[in-house]
Amino acid sequence: MFFVPEIIEKKKRGLKLSKEEIEFIVNGYVAGKIPDYQVSALLMAIYFKGMDEEETTNLTMAMAYSGEIVDFSSIEGIKVDKHSTGGIADTTTLVLLPLAASVGVKVAKMSGRGLGHTGGTIDKLESIPGFRCELGDKEFIDAVNTIGAAITGQSKNLVPADKMLYALRDVTATVDSIPLIASSIMSKKIAGGADKIILDVKFGNGAFMKNYEDALKLGTLMVKIGQLAGRETVAYITDMDQPLGLAIGNTIEVIEAAETLKGRGHKDLLSLCLEFASEMMILAQVEKDKNKAVERLEASIDSGKALDKLKEIIASQGGNPEVLEDYSLLPKAKYELEVKAPADGFVKQIDAVRLGLASMKIGAGRQKKEDIIDPAVGIWIYKKVGEEVTKGEPFAKILANDKEKLTWAADEARAAFEFSREPKEKRKVIWAKITKNGVSEL
Amino acid sequence: MFFVPEIIEKKKRGLKLSKEEIEFIVNGYVAGKIPDYQVSALLMAIYFKGMDEEETTNLTMAMAYSGEIVDFSSIEGIKVDKHSTGGIADTTTLVLLPLAASVGVKVAKMSGRGLGHTGGTIDKLESIPGFRCELGDKEFIDAVNTIGAAITGQSKNLVPADKMLYALRDVTATVDSIPLIASSIMSKKIAGGADKIILDVKFGNGAFMKNYEDALKLGTLMVKIGQLAGRETVAYITDMDQPLGLAIGNTIEVIEAAETLKGRGHKDLLSLCLEFASEMMILAQVEKDKNKAVERLEASIDSGKALDKLKEIIASQGGNPEVLEDYSLLPKAKYELEVKAPADGFVKQIDAVRLGLASMKIGAGRQKKEDIIDPAVGIWIYKKVGEEVTKGEPFAKILANDKEKLTWAADEARAAFEFSREPKEKRKVIWAKITKNGVSEL
Repeated sequence: MFFVPEIIEKKKRGLKLSKEEIEFIVNGYVAGKIPDYQVSALLMAIYFKGMDEEETTNLTMAMAYSGEIVDFSSIEGIKVDKHSTGGIADTTTLVLLPLAASVGVKVAKMSGRGLGHTGGTIDKLESIPGFRCELGDKEFIDAVNTIGAAITGQSKNLVPADKMLYALRDVTATVDSIPLIASSIMSKKIAGGADKIILDVKFGNGAFMKNYEDALKLGTLMVKIGQLAGRETVAYITDMDQPLGLAIGNTIEVIEAAETLKGRGHKDLLSLCLEFASEMMILAQVEKDKNKAVERLEASIDSGKALDKLKEIIASQGGNPEVLEDYSLLPKAKYELEVKAPADGFVKQIDAVRLGLASMKIGAGRQKKEDIIDPAVGIWIYKKVGEEVTKGEPFAKILANDKEKLTWAADEARAAFEFSREPKEKRKVIWAKITKNGVSEL
Repeated sequence: MFFVPEIIEKKKRGLKLSKEEIEFIVNGYVAGKIPDYQVSALLMAIYFKGMDEEETTNLTMAMAYSGEIVDFSSIEGIKVDKHSTGGIADTTTLVLLPLAASVGVKVAKMSGRGLGHTGGTIDKLESIPGFRCELGDKEFIDAVNTIGAAITGQSKNLVPADKMLYALRDVTATVDSIPLIASSIMSKKIAGGADKIILDVKFGNGAFMKNYEDALKLGTLMVKIGQLAGRETVAYITDMDQPLGLAIGNTIEVIEAAETLKGRGHKDLLSLCLEFASEMMILAQVEKDKNKAVERLEASIDSGKALDKLKEIIASQGGNPEVLEDYSLLPKAKYELEVKAPADGFVKQIDAVRLGLASMKIGAGRQKKEDIIDPAVGIWIYKKVGEEVTKGEPFAKILANDKEKLTWAADEARAAFEFSREPKEKRKVIWAKITKNGVSEL
């Protein structure tokens, strides 16, 4: 039997907690036997003293097994899940799902809603008339087996420890601890039934990790946890110092995904989707050669197979696949306003967070759980860092259902863009790839 | 208006909290508006990042004013309170009260019960038949004004913030933080109506502070808080690496106090009482010259005035003062057992904590609030570090009301004493004195 203050004291002194101590805390907390105030003190001690790879893995596994564990054994093949630490104009999942499925990877995606600048992938898809995201277990698995991909909401009882710990961290200033972030992410992936995991660890102004070094630490730790937990994990460190794609919203991200699958997407978003999808093919063992994987994916886009796969997914979940050909079938905002460049020059910098918050505040995302998302609103950007503009050329477009919000968001977008006379280099999208063999900077 | 997680975050980053932020936390916590889990996270951040003198003073004052403030303005003169951080065989207060009062210092003592190796001063006095410690406000003040000294229990509503914070620290491994300890002690002294404060900061095996350096830090910080709070404070750093006096119990500490007032006490206890009492005289402005103060105190002991003052106090609070002349009127344990030296030699070391715990476990102190103290039991020691023993000479005596406990405690006492063939130096009692002008090592 353990005594909670002694466990806190141990961590406070920077000592290593045993597997049993960590399980005692997690299980006791979930069971309501250990109070919040002891756990929050322990979290703060972990913030200051850290946890090593083994402790973090033990925490991850204790959390993962605190509730239901998803069983995907009836889906054939190796299940690879992709997870992003969150960014702005990140439409990757919407593209990746059909793209990977179109070349034979089975993609069983469980997704949350949560808070953020826009809705989650589920919210985005729900902007398609008729689309249903709440599938029964059997319906979901059957869809993955027949179509190759399906998406559903997360089980309510998945990783209760994470829900409780996250809520507590949020109000006790203990969110920004790398072992706590790593265990939160990895526990959900492990409980979510993934055999292998691809992580997109973003850094920069628009990301949770503000700098490359912290992102690298987090990614490295998660790859190690994956290895110790028997779930091969590959992490990418990617740029979030500007929006990834061009659309920040729900309907408009569906449109951007469709455009990307039609071969007309921005190359930043496309390159990331190709990298993740080809890595999924390798991990799922549907292809051995990375270059060949990318070729097959490009061919799938060129032939329209990838787009057809998204139509299939939409149709199978009750939505109207025609929306991908005729965007006017999607919800449309009442008002639009283009924001124009003040002079000739180049985009020097884009304040991604400012754009994200503006999108959220005009209705594209949730500030509180109870908020209802407006699928039609959002912000399109036309230019990314390093791209040229001429005077009077629109560089962004606001979509809103309220005139006041429209002009406010336009001002925000104007303030979020910085221009320069001199050419500015484009930003690299993928900075590093981390596997169990180490880090390769790209 | 403040946002609690931002205050925690600020301290987590090592920044200074404002007076307003500290008051917001303390008042909000006492009012039940800020939950335990946020406060415990903040306490852990304070443990790691500390608080400067100004923050600690602001915390102290916010705590002091969280409840009732004792008003001693109707007692004539300057009220000086002595406080000890706690030790073993520390009968100081029982001696100091009548000693200082016998030379004209007004001593209004409010004392707690609490947990510990023995009872508090109040518990000790209650071993005297008839003695009452629960005095009404008026009765208490009248007694101080007429007799010069009185002792009463602490008001229930004194420093509720400290009660809540201490209970929380106790279960979240955040007790050992110097600013938190300092604010806890000083808030109680300030709310307790003291104009000036003498602090006995003990260090060593039997004390809360294990080493001299930490005790010095704590003492220095409390003197500074006293100064910033307008309560002149003098702190002493004193030895607690062995018991201070010879008695560890309740009745037997009353006997030791009487013996000391009769001029027959151990010189360690006596010297500390003379130092504190003379300092009280200086602070209370009943004497200007320190040497003269000590002379007056010694004269008071020699003439029997000091002992008479204790008799007066006892009589005024309903007790039988005859107990000081005839100890057989005090509660007596059923069993006694002397512990004898195994060989000729010197006392090398005494494990004070072990003796304290043994006393507590045979009934002299409380482990839990609900425990009832047995006034008659305890441990007498006859020898201190550096004192000579001859083979077969008793060096301790156990008093118990249970035969099994008697022999168990005798074994504990045996284990607590270490002897050596070689002479061993006696330990210094007072190591340093800290005033607003700085530290003088003694």
